[in-house]
Amino acid sequence: MRNLKGRKIAILATNGFEESELFEPKNVLENSGAEVTVISPASGKIKAWKHGNWSKEIKVDITLDDASENDYDCLILPGGVINPDKLRRSSEAVDFVRRFFEKRKLIAAICHGPQLLIDAEIINGRTMTSFPAIKKDLQNAGANWVDSDVVVDDNILTSRKPDDLDAFNKKIIEILS
Amino acid sequence: MRNLKGRKIAILATNGFEESELFEPKNVLENSGAEVTVISPASGKIKAWKHGNWSKEIKVDITLDDASENDYDCLILPGGVINPDKLRRSSEAVDFVRRFFEKRKLIAAICHGPQLLIDAEIINGRTMTSFPAIKKDLQNAGANWVDSDVVVDDNILTSRKPDDLDAFNKKIIEILS
Repeated sequence: MRNLKGRKIAILATNGFEESELFEPKNVLENSGAEVTVISPASGKIKAWKHGNWSKEIKVDITLDDASENDYDCLILPGGVINPDKLRRSSEAVDFVRRFFEKRKLIAAICHGPQLLIDAEIINGRTMTSFPAIKKDLQNAGANWVDSDVVVDDNILTSRKPDDLDAFNKKIIEILS
Repeated sequence: MRNLKGRKIAILATNGFEESELFEPKNVLENSGAEVTVISPASGKIKAWKHGNWSKEIKVDITLDDASENDYDCLILPGGVINPDKLRRSSEAVDFVRRFFEKRKLIAAICHGPQLLIDAEIINGRTMTSFPAIKKDLQNAGANWVDSDVVVDDNILTSRKPDDLDAFNKKIIEILS
C-alpha cells in the first residue's frame, strides 16, 4: 500500500453517519500513514447508524467551529440517510465543504454524502455518483450521474454505497499518494 | 368540523415515517368522516420514527401492488428522513404519486414527503414548502420554495414539519369539504 505519511485528512460527520463509511476509510487511511481528524458540529461523541439502527460511537476530534480547511489535504463525507440531512442544514458545514472545493482539495463523498455538495453548489456539470435515492437531486443540480463504484471528476470523488468502500478507499489513496 | 363522509384518502408510507405525520392526519380525517387507507410497498406493519428513534407500528391496509389511485380522492405523503428515501427508490411508488397528480387529485406532502414529488417530476414552477433540509433539492427541481406552515398550488399541498400539522390537516379538510 502506498504511503500517505504527512497527509492530513478531515472527515466531516454528525449523528447518523453510516458506520462503515466513516470507520473503514479512517482505518485504511490511517494504516497508510495519514493523520485522520473527525470533525463535527456536535461535540463529544457522534453515533453511527448500521443496518437500520443506531450503533457505535466515535469521538469528535475537533468541532466544526474550530476547524480550518487549511489544515487538511482532503475532506471525506460519509453517508447514512440521517447524517448529511442534518449537516446540510448548517451553513457552516456547507461553507466548510465549499472551501475545500475552492482551494482545489480533494472531496470524497459516498452514499448520501453528496447531498452536501448540492448545497455547496459545486456539482453543476460534474460526472459523479451517489446512493441511488438521491440520483434525481444530483441530476437536478446539474450533475451527470453515473452508476459506478467510484467516479472522479476534477477534485470530486464519489461512490454509491458501503459495498463500494474498497474502490472508494483505494482511489483516495491513489490520488493522495 | 366539516364533514368528509364518503371521502377516501390514501396515505403512502413505509418504515421510518414520522409518527405524528401519519397518525395525526389519519385521526383528524377519520374524525371528520373520511375513510383513510394506509398503503405501503411493505406488507404487514410499518414502523414509525419519533424523536430520533424507532417508535410504534401501524398496520398496512393495502400493499402498493394492490392499490389504485382511482379508489381515492386524495394522497397524503408523510415525512421522516428515512421513509421517503426508501419510497423514492421504488418506481412503482413514484408512478403511484404521479398518477394522483395527472388525475387532478389532491396530493398533500409534509416534511421530507415532497422528495417523492421531485422523482415524480411534477413540481417545476410550483410554489411549495418542505422540511428545510431539502429546500435546495426542490428549488433545483424548479419549485418556488417558501417558508410557510402550509402552501397550496393547484392540487399540491405542502407543509414543513410536525409543528405545521394543525395547518396541514385543516387545509386538507377545507379543500376536500
